[in-house]
Amino acid sequence: MGRCTFRNLGLLQVIKGRCKIPVFVLIRPRGGDFRYSDLEIQVMRQDIQIFKAHKADGFVIGALSSTAIINFPRQLIVKYSTVRCMSIFLAAFDMCQDPFIAMETIICLGFERILTSGQESSVLEGAPLIRSLVEKAHNRIIIMPGGGINDRNLERILKETNAEEFHCSARSSKNSEMQYQKSSVYMGGVLRAPEFITKSTDAGMVQRMKEMLDKR
Amino acid sequence: MGRCTFRNLGLLQVIKGRCKIPVFVLIRPRGGDFRYSDLEIQVMRQDIQIFKAHKADGFVIGALSSTAIINFPRQLIVKYSTVRCMSIFLAAFDMCQDPFIAMETIICLGFERILTSGQESSVLEGAPLIRSLVEKAHNRIIIMPGGGINDRNLERILKETNAEEFHCSARSSKNSEMQYQKSSVYMGGVLRAPEFITKSTDAGMVQRMKEMLDKR
Amino acid sequence: MGRCTFRNLGLLQVIKGRCKIPVFVLIRPRGGDFRYSDLEIQVMRQDIQIFKAHKADGFVIGALSSTAIINFPRQLIVKYSTVRCMSIFLAAFDMCQDPFIAMETIICLGFERILTSGQESSVLEGAPLIRSLVEKAHNRIIIMPGGGINDRNLERILKETNAEEFHCSARSSKNSEMQYQKSSVYMGGVLRAPEFITKSTDAGMVQRMKEMLDKR
Amino acid sequence: MGRCTFRNLGLLQVIKGRCKIPVFVLIRPRGGDFRYSDLEIQVMRQDIQIFKAHKADGFVIGALSSTAIINFPRQLIVKYSTVRCMSIFLAAFDMCQDPFIAMETIICLGFERILTSGQESSVLEGAPLIRSLVEKAHNRIIIMPGGGINDRNLERILKETNAEEFHCSARSSKNSEMQYQKSSVYMGGVLRAPEFITKSTDAGMVQRMKEMLDKR
Repeated sequence: MGRCTFRNLGLLQVIKGRCKIPVFVLIRPRGGDFRYSDLEIQVMRQDIQIFKAHKADGFVIGALSSTAIINFPRQLIVKYSTVRCMSIFLAAFDMCQDPFIAMETIICLGFERILTSGQESSVLEGAPLIRSLVEKAHNRIIIMPGGGINDRNLERILKETNAEEFHCSARSSKNSEMQYQKSSVYMGGVLRAPEFITKSTDAGMVQRMKEMLDKR
Repeated sequence: MGRCTFRNLGLLQVIKGRCKIPVFVLIRPRGGDFRYSDLEIQVMRQDIQIFKAHKADGFVIGALSSTAIINFPRQLIVKYSTVRCMSIFLAAFDMCQDPFIAMETIICLGFERILTSGQESSVLEGAPLIRSLVEKAHNRIIIMPGGGINDRNLERILKETNAEEFHCSARSSKNSEMQYQKSSVYMGGVLRAPEFITKSTDAGMVQRMKEMLDKR
Repeated sequence: MGRCTFRNLGLLQVIKGRCKIPVFVLIRPRGGDFRYSDLEIQVMRQDIQIFKAHKADGFVIGALSSTAIINFPRQLIVKYSTVRCMSIFLAAFDMCQDPFIAMETIICLGFERILTSGQESSVLEGAPLIRSLVEKAHNRIIIMPGGGINDRNLERILKETNAEEFHCSARSSKNSEMQYQKSSVYMGGVLRAPEFITKSTDAGMVQRMKEMLDKR
Repeated sequence: MGRCTFRNLGLLQVIKGRCKIPVFVLIRPRGGDFRYSDLEIQVMRQDIQIFKAHKADGFVIGALSSTAIINFPRQLIVKYSTVRCMSIFLAAFDMCQDPFIAMETIICLGFERILTSGQESSVLEGAPLIRSLVEKAHNRIIIMPGGGINDRNLERILKETNAEEFHCSARSSKNSEMQYQKSSVYMGGVLRAPEFITKSTDAGMVQRMKEMLDKR
């Protein structure tokens, strides 16, 4: 607890001006897989440089080869090492062929943390692998579980994974406060993210989770 | 045709370094409705300032009250007018109660274009309203249809709406080039955006659409 | 107007006991494509026989080869012709390679109607093809547009397609009447069909659409 | 293992003619919540009667009040008890306010099993509640976990829940064998269940899961 991640520069500035927790920026030029073209890597380099200049405390980043092996491009490493701030290897890790080999590579690359759901759809599903990674890491890198963690499963997850830190959005759904909601704009039988519901961090959930951590 | 929009600063720099078309930046601090809190407006202000400093040619932006009336906050207007670059009122327009009143407000606010799907789920569905807007606008503002336009329906849309410009992503689906695709990470019966398919702009589609425009 | 389709036998009985409109039953053994295995065709045969015995007035059915050519299996034709009730060729039509050749095949097979969105995602998108099909059909088969029709676009659709009949569900969304809505069952960031919203036929919409038809 | 559920009469007949495992039929007149109108209950009654006449071995059924209390309507109980075949209380259980009170009610109603994901989004998430239910049930009813079970998590689930039976579809994704796949029918930026991928039961997964059960 005590870190936050996203990728909007205006938001970084507003947050840095209002609170003191370290802020990590997500460097991911598009959705989909983690195999990037040269131009996409150039965009990632620029983003690192800009966010660094605006006092980001670290980055969440990852890249793979087409055979799902960690492939952190040389030009990113250079840029990246000059940046010299804490960093997290992204969920790209969960797509890797061999997670133990991948972890060794990531340690060599100098990352401080690996963000992972244990190569499954949620941390609870991936808990056995996460526990093995924590053991094999032997304090050389922090294994940080993330994906589907909430205040109902946190205690089990900490116990089953032996992890010391974790990542979660602690969000709950809120209905929009719009009193006039036009329904015609998205008629039809398709499934969309609902326009008039947003998810935002739930202070009560954060509080309950903090207490679980403190109790340990 | 001939403009592009997005919201990533690194990407803006890479594009500005490589081509000459005007680049418009999307200013939208989150998904969901268009009613923003004071902090969200502060983030939007910062984003406008940063992107302006990095030579964005314009912005795509919009804001509503909870009663779905155009509500472009004073502090944004100030920031915005000093920016003095071309700008487009976002799809928030499609959520407005009365589109004709909304258009007059947007003209007063000094926007150059309104991006709209005619208050329906696609431009083709909204074509009759778009045509009325084009007429009532009488060249005071450019009505720019956007939403579901492709090379199969462009000619009909231009004819039915009388619009002079339009917005479209001209994307087609591409399978990921990952040779190793781990399927376990997202098991379960839920519907997600597919991880191993990405959509990217299709040069052939852009070419075909350009020819349709030129033929007019 | 004046027909309804679905695939539940208990529902057929309840409806036949309460109203007099013809009821058509959807014969589709699974979702996905329209290429069926021998066992799936056996299931379809059984379904036709059972629903016929329970006084279904017709069927909505379709089948394709792997090359997207109409492939209505011999054993279904036999079963089907003995059934001798009105029938509609399903949206499988929209997946066909050549819609005009497909229409000729479907006429030969003795179907009374083709249900189609004009090989596009909605009837409005597919209107030009539907209009051509109506012309080429020349009253030999009824081309019945279906897909995204509502009371806001019906008049345009009838005018643009020249169709005499259409298919629509005329549904609007209703919130569930459950006063206690457990949110924990589907937590997480995935997109699902919302549990506590159902769509049901909107009598007002049906009325408005009927008046549009009568006005012609 | 050794039971299957669905709701298609033709399919029931084909399966009963080819194999000997008991077949349970899902009685659910529509999606959404489990609060049914009188007409919907009439449809459920009809369905029970028809499927019983066609040798269904049991039913999967459930119904709630608007306050999320088990509300199995009198007219269904009568119909149901004359049916006198094994039956399972549906996932409606997971929406109940108090699962322990709900279990007692369901035992009184004479059901043989409760199908549950432990009031969470998957069995693994709900495992602690399922374990408590198994204990409190004390062999008066079978608690049958179902939801997200696969060959990678089955051993953990059996161990964490103490359950003796479980429900799963053991499906894996298969690409469609259609060689011609029209992409235009569903263009646009919306998220849909993919047309050209189907999920079907994976015999290898069933075999692996059977071995895990036998090893216990």
